[in-house]
Amino acid sequence: MQHVYIDQLKDKIGSEVTLKGWLYNSRSSGKLVFLQLRDGTGIVQCVVFKGSDEDVFERAKSLGQESSIIVTGTVKEDSRSPIGVELDVTGLEVLQNVHDYPITPKEHGTEFLMDNRHLWIRSKKQHAVLKVRHTIIKAVRDYFDGQGFTLADTPIFTPAACEGTTTLFEVDYFGDEKAYLTQSGQLYNEATAMSLGKTYAFGPTFRAEKSKTRRHLTEFWMVEPEVAYANYEDMMDLGEGLILFIVERVLNDRRLELETLERDISKLEAITSPFPRLHYDDAVKMLQEGYDMERRHPAGEGEDSGKVPVFQQRFEWGGDFGSPDETYLSNQFGKPVWVHHFPAAIKGFYFEVDKDRPECALGIDLLAPEGYGEIIGGGERASSLEYLEQQLKHHGLPQETFEWYLDLRRYGSVPHAGFGMGIERTVAWMCGIEHVRETIPFPRMLYRLRP
Amino acid sequence: MQHVYIDQLKDKIGSEVTLKGWLYNSRSSGKLVFLQLRDGTGIVQCVVFKGSDEDVFERAKSLGQESSIIVTGTVKEDSRSPIGVELDVTGLEVLQNVHDYPITPKEHGTEFLMDNRHLWIRSKKQHAVLKVRHTIIKAVRDYFDGQGFTLADTPIFTPAACEGTTTLFEVDYFGDEKAYLTQSGQLYNEATAMSLGKTYAFGPTFRAEKSKTRRHLTEFWMVEPEVAYANYEDMMDLGEGLILFIVERVLNDRRLELETLERDISKLEAITSPFPRLHYDDAVKMLQEGYDMERRHPAGEGEDSGKVPVFQQRFEWGGDFGSPDETYLSNQFGKPVWVHHFPAAIKGFYFEVDKDRPECALGIDLLAPEGYGEIIGGGERASSLEYLEQQLKHHGLPQETFEWYLDLRRYGSVPHAGFGMGIERTVAWMCGIEHVRETIPFPRMLYRLRP
Repeated sequence: MQHVYIDQLKDKIGSEVTLKGWLYNSRSSGKLVFLQLRDGTGIVQCVVFKGSDEDVFERAKSLGQESSIIVTGTVKEDSRSPIGVELDVTGLEVLQNVHDYPITPKEHGTEFLMDNRHLWIRSKKQHAVLKVRHTIIKAVRDYFDGQGFTLADTPIFTPAACEGTTTLFEVDYFGDEKAYLTQSGQLYNEATAMSLGKTYAFGPTFRAEKSKTRRHLTEFWMVEPEVAYANYEDMMDLGEGLILFIVERVLNDRRLELETLERDISKLEAITSPFPRLHYDDAVKMLQEGYDMERRHPAGEGEDSGKVPVFQQRFEWGGDFGSPDETYLSNQFGKPVWVHHFPAAIKGFYFEVDKDRPECALGIDLLAPEGYGEIIGGGERASSLEYLEQQLKHHGLPQETFEWYLDLRRYGSVPHAGFGMGIERTVAWMCGIEHVRETIPFPRMLYRLRP
Repeated sequence: MQHVYIDQLKDKIGSEVTLKGWLYNSRSSGKLVFLQLRDGTGIVQCVVFKGSDEDVFERAKSLGQESSIIVTGTVKEDSRSPIGVELDVTGLEVLQNVHDYPITPKEHGTEFLMDNRHLWIRSKKQHAVLKVRHTIIKAVRDYFDGQGFTLADTPIFTPAACEGTTTLFEVDYFGDEKAYLTQSGQLYNEATAMSLGKTYAFGPTFRAEKSKTRRHLTEFWMVEPEVAYANYEDMMDLGEGLILFIVERVLNDRRLELETLERDISKLEAITSPFPRLHYDDAVKMLQEGYDMERRHPAGEGEDSGKVPVFQQRFEWGGDFGSPDETYLSNQFGKPVWVHHFPAAIKGFYFEVDKDRPECALGIDLLAPEGYGEIIGGGERASSLEYLEQQLKHHGLPQETFEWYLDLRRYGSVPHAGFGMGIERTVAWMCGIEHVRETIPFPRMLYRLRP
């Protein structure tokens, strides 16, 4: 008998086929047993009729959740099914009849589910998130490959930090040497961009952040394009195109999964070009106006009763956005919003600055709507050797460690720019889920290293 | 003026365009300067004629290797050019005129080149290797995505070892906790395969191997498919299809780069289906016959004068192949060769064994031709809980650490199989280069953590 997958069934109507999978759920009513079979590509209802084979019927009735089974039957059109078909069972082979599967349809606590992450990923919603993640990663790669970018993955073991030293994981590298796990491939991307022109790295990155928020993992995946002869505005174009490409793919290919996740699809359909581009100065004004408005109409009075105040204090020029600031800004637009020209003082040593206003770095951030925060960060890199040498001193970084990086300015320096996009936050946003821990097969966090 | 890339020039014949890049090489003869310009997508000859603009001519003559320049000119068909076109220069902007670029066309030592890896990747051959690497990685992903596999990346931080504990990198995970860097995603892949049916992980893996060979890196990329309801023979089919897919892509898309690398393309064209499949018993016989033959016709006599003996000693059943054994076996066929049914005693605790000969594990290895060694390793996984519990004891592994893995056999256990393919060895083989250190942008080895 021909082994087929559930996602192929709609082309097999009338045929007898064999499915291999696991029992997701079942119920029986008199002379019928309804088996919900999953095989990784979908879930299909398999109907066992007592009259056709008593033995198969009894075996079907006895099965517990997650039993591994091989089912043979005839594919029947069924308009009530989400996938348009069901199976009339003629044969059933039981590989393992399971009766104590720990994750039952009842509610479980998060810790319990995370401890059983190796099983939890079989659940309908978790499965849907992983399928969306797959589609997003493929979309990202297709987008860059389709635009002539060359993948050049950067090293995980690094001798130096890129984004500050407080959140570095240290590795014992053969006895007396120390290595650090990469926090960003950017510095290396700048080197490969000088070889390949348009390049991207796409791998895991690591931050030993002690913060326990719904947006942080210690191990997360990031895609980082870098382009020679490009400026920060080119990067806003590139990043905007990337987000639109991802949204379109997810809406096209993962409609069923978004429904499973009860995602408000209209929110994704609202993501259209162009994205607003906000100078940091204007973002600050917007936040200050928000604060002033809130003071004039304090929360908890009249119609606003029950509303929690957004702002703890008035935002001042020079500060870095916190989560509430990011959420407030993106809420003004209902689509992703770019902020550019951040204060140089709060940005990395490698940023190019505005020639007319050197206190402004040519940095860009993309804030996702619905409170998902910053999902892209990047900008234009300084191309002057002298400026970078000053900056290293200013940031207290040892020039010796960065000599190779300075070589990129000694030998054929060109304007260039790039950014990084976090995959887990993007997946969380597309799926509309609360916490990034559900966006990766096996999340790693402050207190979570297992399974 | 329209900025175009060199790989687009053949569609621009007759047009005036602007190229942005670096000077790869130059020569002048009387009234002409020939600039070899590279921009990451290729190299094109730009011809400057003294008569057309004296000023541009003088500037062009003064340029050193790796100067960053923006060149404007008219695209002209030229049959002598490897890319079919050259540029008649009308304008030249010099961003940085470089005169002390450390990597000159003369020969440099390997250590010097590795210390300057951030610049070395701009060289023609290194650039070609990176382009082939990109194409191979894309081919791998397209192959699995096209066959209904779902990408599900496995964690880098792991609490336990999969492939033995002597080559683990240890990470300080928030004070008192220890984490290890993954050596293989396999155990986690087995969990995701039970959710997704057909899955693959593709990321960096780490081995703290103290061996300094041309086949080892401490940080290398591996693709690892895993399939529920599959056996070891299915994995030989899957792996063979993968290799054929890669070879075809590289031959189609990277012909120019293979020529740059002086790769013997006929060796790649000889890689056709089917690959020989050798039972370990027969591989042992072949090695023993080789040894016996060598003893009857010792090296260094008559026609064989100067030949180095392959075998140090007669291979005995139960042993693991060394590099010379792998090379000898693959040399018998001139194409990749599968070996299966390895002695269970030399394989991991998780292997399924042959029911009729329990001393044989259902493991498979693919040996690449031309001495590139094992590039695929995998097989069928044990599905019985009792057997795995025994195996953990037998291997001296703490059952507690593997309880989550044993859950996969408690709840819906099914036959399943998978493998891992090392990217760097595959790139080395396709490119025909000696050492894996040139197959990755920034290699990490025993004594190499920089740049």
